[in-house]
Amino acid sequence: MSKANDNYYRVGEEDLKTVIAAILKRNGVPSDQAAIVGDVLVAAELRGIETHGVGRLKSYYTWRLQNGYMNPEPKLQVERNYGATFVLDADNGLGHPACHAAMNRCIELAEQYGVGMGGVKNSNHFGIAGYYSMMALEKNMIGVCLTNAQPLIIPTYSKRRLLGSNPISIAVPAGKEPAFVLDMATSVVSYGEIQVHQRKEKAILHGWGADSRGKTTTDPSAVINGGGLLPVGGDAASAGYKGYGLAAAVDILSGVLTGASFLSNVLSSQKSPDPCGVGHFVAALKTEAFIDPDEFKAKMDSFIEELKSAPLADDCDRIYVAGEKEFMQWEENRKNGVPVHETVWEELVELCHENDINPPAVL
Amino acid sequence: MSKANDNYYRVGEEDLKTVIAAILKRNGVPSDQAAIVGDVLVAAELRGIETHGVGRLKSYYTWRLQNGYMNPEPKLQVERNYGATFVLDADNGLGHPACHAAMNRCIELAEQYGVGMGGVKNSNHFGIAGYYSMMALEKNMIGVCLTNAQPLIIPTYSKRRLLGSNPISIAVPAGKEPAFVLDMATSVVSYGEIQVHQRKEKAILHGWGADSRGKTTTDPSAVINGGGLLPVGGDAASAGYKGYGLAAAVDILSGVLTGASFLSNVLSSQKSPDPCGVGHFVAALKTEAFIDPDEFKAKMDSFIEELKSAPLADDCDRIYVAGEKEFMQWEENRKNGVPVHETVWEELVELCHENDINPPAVL
Repeated sequence: MSKANDNYYRVGEEDLKTVIAAILKRNGVPSDQAAIVGDVLVAAELRGIETHGVGRLKSYYTWRLQNGYMNPEPKLQVERNYGATFVLDADNGLGHPACHAAMNRCIELAEQYGVGMGGVKNSNHFGIAGYYSMMALEKNMIGVCLTNAQPLIIPTYSKRRLLGSNPISIAVPAGKEPAFVLDMATSVVSYGEIQVHQRKEKAILHGWGADSRGKTTTDPSAVINGGGLLPVGGDAASAGYKGYGLAAAVDILSGVLTGASFLSNVLSSQKSPDPCGVGHFVAALKTEAFIDPDEFKAKMDSFIEELKSAPLADDCDRIYVAGEKEFMQWEENRKNGVPVHETVWEELVELCHENDINPPAVL
Repeated sequence: MSKANDNYYRVGEEDLKTVIAAILKRNGVPSDQAAIVGDVLVAAELRGIETHGVGRLKSYYTWRLQNGYMNPEPKLQVERNYGATFVLDADNGLGHPACHAAMNRCIELAEQYGVGMGGVKNSNHFGIAGYYSMMALEKNMIGVCLTNAQPLIIPTYSKRRLLGSNPISIAVPAGKEPAFVLDMATSVVSYGEIQVHQRKEKAILHGWGADSRGKTTTDPSAVINGGGLLPVGGDAASAGYKGYGLAAAVDILSGVLTGASFLSNVLSSQKSPDPCGVGHFVAALKTEAFIDPDEFKAKMDSFIEELKSAPLADDCDRIYVAGEKEFMQWEENRKNGVPVHETVWEELVELCHENDINPPAVL
């Protein structure tokens, strides 16, 4: 048994997906839905987004399934359908298959109407938003995915966590260049980043989070104990109200418009026995409806090339386009195997033993 | 003749609209299009967004018309039409009537399909994005409006201005509460804010702008002379790459997808004799397609009320919701008259004399 480096094991992509799906099946999830969750979690690991990968399997998903807090066999039902739009009821099942179904429906609608748009209600945590927006790429479509989540962000001038880190993801196909994939939380940094700084006893930067009085702080413990994350932009002087506005807009589209929960009513995946009430919002735009598809791809390539070849700031060695770093990670990890952090690995092996499943082979 | 205070004159809303329209008509713009521009510019002043109001009439619009750089009598033509989507060619006319027509078409399409979505190409500066997103409100729809603009923002790790301050506007109807209206540039602050600090010889905050080497600076002159604005978030350490990603996404939807110009090819309204090549992107979402309309309004009210009644940070006296400050300004200015800054007033009076029109009466 070898490790990729001191802290990581590398395992095969398909092997890891199969193991995740098997664990979920043992917890009552139907095969097709379990396979989707495996695919989404492994995609996160491949893209280097560890915070949304295999590490969530136990703490967010199997824990809820085992305790009956989440429905293992939801009936995904389209509740409303009007022209190019719809709302899907996730029946308190895993968020991944629900959002996957919703994005597939958006793609079908966009084929017919140029755009397809849908909301998902009664859902749960769904992993990385970028997975669903990127589903549109192979159809030459632009994908959009938003979701709300349990409160972590403090609105400007308040001191209470009221908004989730409500991500915005937009994926746009290109020609020769890798796709443009924006996938960003509307907080400055993730809550996990604050926790890492606390563990390492390192100060955080001014503007990342606020303390229990609502004031920006450099002490990660003050953010965790009664404070919260600040929205993109940081405090009011540096235009944090813009990030607050964006996080609120995501909550309106994902939560209010879909009939899901919103603000303080979205409950935590790790704590609440009640349904989390998460809502998602997805859309697909058929590029061909707007412009000749070859012209679009050529223009996206020159858009990306102009950004990447722009003059560099002092002491900087390259300019990145949204999704480019994750694409580089993905290429490397597809070649060398999926890196799994040792603490996540230990949890995974334990889950395998509990469920009488062989852990993935270490490469 | 009296002033609202030392620096402002107050004039009647309808009077001001009529004068603006008359000036544009003298410059060859048809009545219906001129009236729309008057309405958009006065709406900006009423909402307290002076940077996008009457002050742009000469420097952005009549200057281009008089020199033949902008088409006074454009033929607004729907070039593509596919299901719920379309692209409109603005024929190098004023941006306001073009985007107004596009949003009206979105509303019609949303009535039929639940969503309507359109791009505008070959356009020009159109004033405040919020005007067009708010057009959806009276139909119980959510309005979205984006536009690109001439480069002012420096992408993360570069030192060249490549992205416009590319605004994002989303307007959402509520019940008893005023509508939620997000209307934000994707830069930390506007270029005008930097100019004001230069004029007053005041330092700007760290993270608002960068100098010619691409480094964040507190000297407004360094931003103006060879530097540029930083995207929402500021520099890389405070997640400015998120604002950069948003500004890029707005450029893709407004510029690349519509067939308009993008990045460095979008030209300045104040400098370029060539067509600016601006692109806009608009959408309308029929709330009733997703949820019962009364339920939606009631939920939007509780969304807004929960934010506004949240516990306050130390030394803060109220929490605002997006668009609330502008709504308060609008209420006050509708009652007391539109405030016009004395320098803008002088320019307006000069334009009136040049065009043989009576200036608006000062209240």
